[in-house]
Amino acid sequence: MLEMVIDDLDNENLYEIELNHPKHRLMAPGPTMVPERVKMAMLRSIRHHRSQYFAGLLEQVRDGLREIFRTDGDILIFTSSGTGMLEAAVQNFFSEGDRVLVVNTGHFGDRWVRICQAYGLTVRVLEVEWGRAVNPKLIEQRLSEEVGREIKGVFVTHTETSTGIENDIEEIGKIVRETDALFLVDTVSGLATSRYQMDEWGVDVSLSASQKGLMCPPGLGFAAVSEKAWMANRRATLPRFYFDLASAKDGMADFKTPWTPAISIIYGVHEAIKMILSEGLENVWERHNKLAMAMRAGITAMNLTLFSINHAPNVTVVNCPDGVTSKELRGKILERFGIYLADGQGRLKDRVFRIGHMGYVDKLDVIATLGALEVVLKDFGHIFDEGAGLREALDVIRG
Amino acid sequence: MLEMVIDDLDNENLYEIELNHPKHRLMAPGPTMVPERVKMAMLRSIRHHRSQYFAGLLEQVRDGLREIFRTDGDILIFTSSGTGMLEAAVQNFFSEGDRVLVVNTGHFGDRWVRICQAYGLTVRVLEVEWGRAVNPKLIEQRLSEEVGREIKGVFVTHTETSTGIENDIEEIGKIVRETDALFLVDTVSGLATSRYQMDEWGVDVSLSASQKGLMCPPGLGFAAVSEKAWMANRRATLPRFYFDLASAKDGMADFKTPWTPAISIIYGVHEAIKMILSEGLENVWERHNKLAMAMRAGITAMNLTLFSINHAPNVTVVNCPDGVTSKELRGKILERFGIYLADGQGRLKDRVFRIGHMGYVDKLDVIATLGALEVVLKDFGHIFDEGAGLREALDVIRG
Repeated sequence: MLEMVIDDLDNENLYEIELNHPKHRLMAPGPTMVPERVKMAMLRSIRHHRSQYFAGLLEQVRDGLREIFRTDGDILIFTSSGTGMLEAAVQNFFSEGDRVLVVNTGHFGDRWVRICQAYGLTVRVLEVEWGRAVNPKLIEQRLSEEVGREIKGVFVTHTETSTGIENDIEEIGKIVRETDALFLVDTVSGLATSRYQMDEWGVDVSLSASQKGLMCPPGLGFAAVSEKAWMANRRATLPRFYFDLASAKDGMADFKTPWTPAISIIYGVHEAIKMILSEGLENVWERHNKLAMAMRAGITAMNLTLFSINHAPNVTVVNCPDGVTSKELRGKILERFGIYLADGQGRLKDRVFRIGHMGYVDKLDVIATLGALEVVLKDFGHIFDEGAGLREALDVIRG
Repeated sequence: MLEMVIDDLDNENLYEIELNHPKHRLMAPGPTMVPERVKMAMLRSIRHHRSQYFAGLLEQVRDGLREIFRTDGDILIFTSSGTGMLEAAVQNFFSEGDRVLVVNTGHFGDRWVRICQAYGLTVRVLEVEWGRAVNPKLIEQRLSEEVGREIKGVFVTHTETSTGIENDIEEIGKIVRETDALFLVDTVSGLATSRYQMDEWGVDVSLSASQKGLMCPPGLGFAAVSEKAWMANRRATLPRFYFDLASAKDGMADFKTPWTPAISIIYGVHEAIKMILSEGLENVWERHNKLAMAMRAGITAMNLTLFSINHAPNVTVVNCPDGVTSKELRGKILERFGIYLADGQGRLKDRVFRIGHMGYVDKLDVIATLGALEVVLKDFGHIFDEGAGLREALDVIRG
């Protein structure tokens, strides 16, 4: 049974379920929990998106996102999930038949392959075993093999939450910047959870969204675009309208979005940016790193194994213990403790469970999750040193 | 000066501006004001979009939207503004070069022309003088002229908020259903503000969004799709990914959206649907009709003229009085009373002002707006029978 069985989800039932676990803990790798400050900001009355008031707000959001992406490039804002922004990255910089290289390290790498194919690009895929980050040298090798058959773009996922790995964007950037190819990075989950320095690392197009490190509900997608990318944009002929980045850039000159934006989520992002910058971006990255170390220490001390070889700081992907499915384990944790963990995606469905620790998560959320896991693992007859997980995690936290 | 000049919009200033007009009245034709009940619903903790809890919620939203669109067809939900859904309607049902007819009655008709062109369709445009609804007989005539050169789709805007008109979707439906063409209707602003009966009127694809009659913040787009449209979908080869409606349909079989939806806005729509159905959809339409009649009576009694010949029930488009620009008039009303009216769009910019009365608006909001207008018009030296506007509007309301 995955979660509670809900036969007739009328209002009373909804309310009852909320009551069962008034403190719902969403420990998934996005969407993530929303801080009270952000919720309060989102309650403000809706102001028209063509008003000066809203333009002023959008300017501040633009400035804040520049700091968070670490870029002086253009910031473009859309009502969209992260996937829409991945599509925007394909539509806006390429033409039919263009040769591109997608580094496929998991489910979200797969998604970029599918988008490129949907738009008729000539897609070369660098397949990486799931659970491992790409070795940047392999990208260098592939690019050199393609000499004379120009690769126009290299697509990489920053933190791949389906497998729990983080690719080395800095090293890959050093390779791609030596070519004419654009370097396009999906940092939907990476932004504001793991070190990311767009300009310094030579990234041309960065994509992200509101519901991960930015601690807001889903609803907004972001693209950050370099000058090199705008040059390519002028030649790109793939059809596009809603996600047309050049129109969005024109609009942002007056702090307008081309279409009606998700205004309440803009309020939320405005507040979340203040929280992030007041904590300090470096501290935010370090916090995520610490959370991940504590979680991994706890998990392995409970006689569980990690799926990934390299590790992203915003998610921990855990192999299911023998004889227990992800569905059973996640269902029990939700039922008993109101904690939502994510299932595996794609080929990992029901084989792993994924614990998100991104955004509005602190050390004690990690401890709480490990505590719940300990109780449930014991119920399932998993053999492990009781108390060791919490002990090891506390050691990391304390250190 | 359009609105207050904001030089340095830091937090204190934002707060101060809110304080100046604690009761901001957003009398624009979308986005619109959000009821307290909807705001409270949106505060609920974010639940994962792959949870049973969320699936149950989505089922209720689907059922409610079916009632509101008056369709048994599929309801598909995207994180998007209305424009994204207009693009979805083009991408999902046509192939390059397909011949389509766009009925262009204003700014949003223009937008559909541009989208069709961006995707390489062969676009025939039925241009209608701005301020008038299309005469359905002209559509019949155009379709008969095109015999042998198959028109695959007819695109019409239900209520065109740029000019203030409403097209007769029922009559147009009778004509289009006699052909093989799909009938695609932009009811972004029309839904839950003016009578709309998708199935009975033979509409194949209806597009809408959360921030108009549905009384929510912007963030969600909706498509309702008929069986005839799905047949066309199977042959349609235009590239698409994020807005792929067939994937969305597959997902909705398990009450899942293909990509992360704007979860907090889903909560809001869920609550707004309850409000609408408890008021009664017919009553909602009648309320909007009454608001529009009162507004028009008040406006004309103030010696102002309406831009449109036919009238939508959700917006009143008013010609600026001699010697006063829309910018001046709207700026003054915002400054003195905290009421936001919308400017004209496209070729009507600064020539008209648009008063929205859609969604969470009642009779006394109309009276308040007319009261503010009376004060400001007098300041600008406009000559009119003082008090007549409010008197006439009250007569309609009372009747």
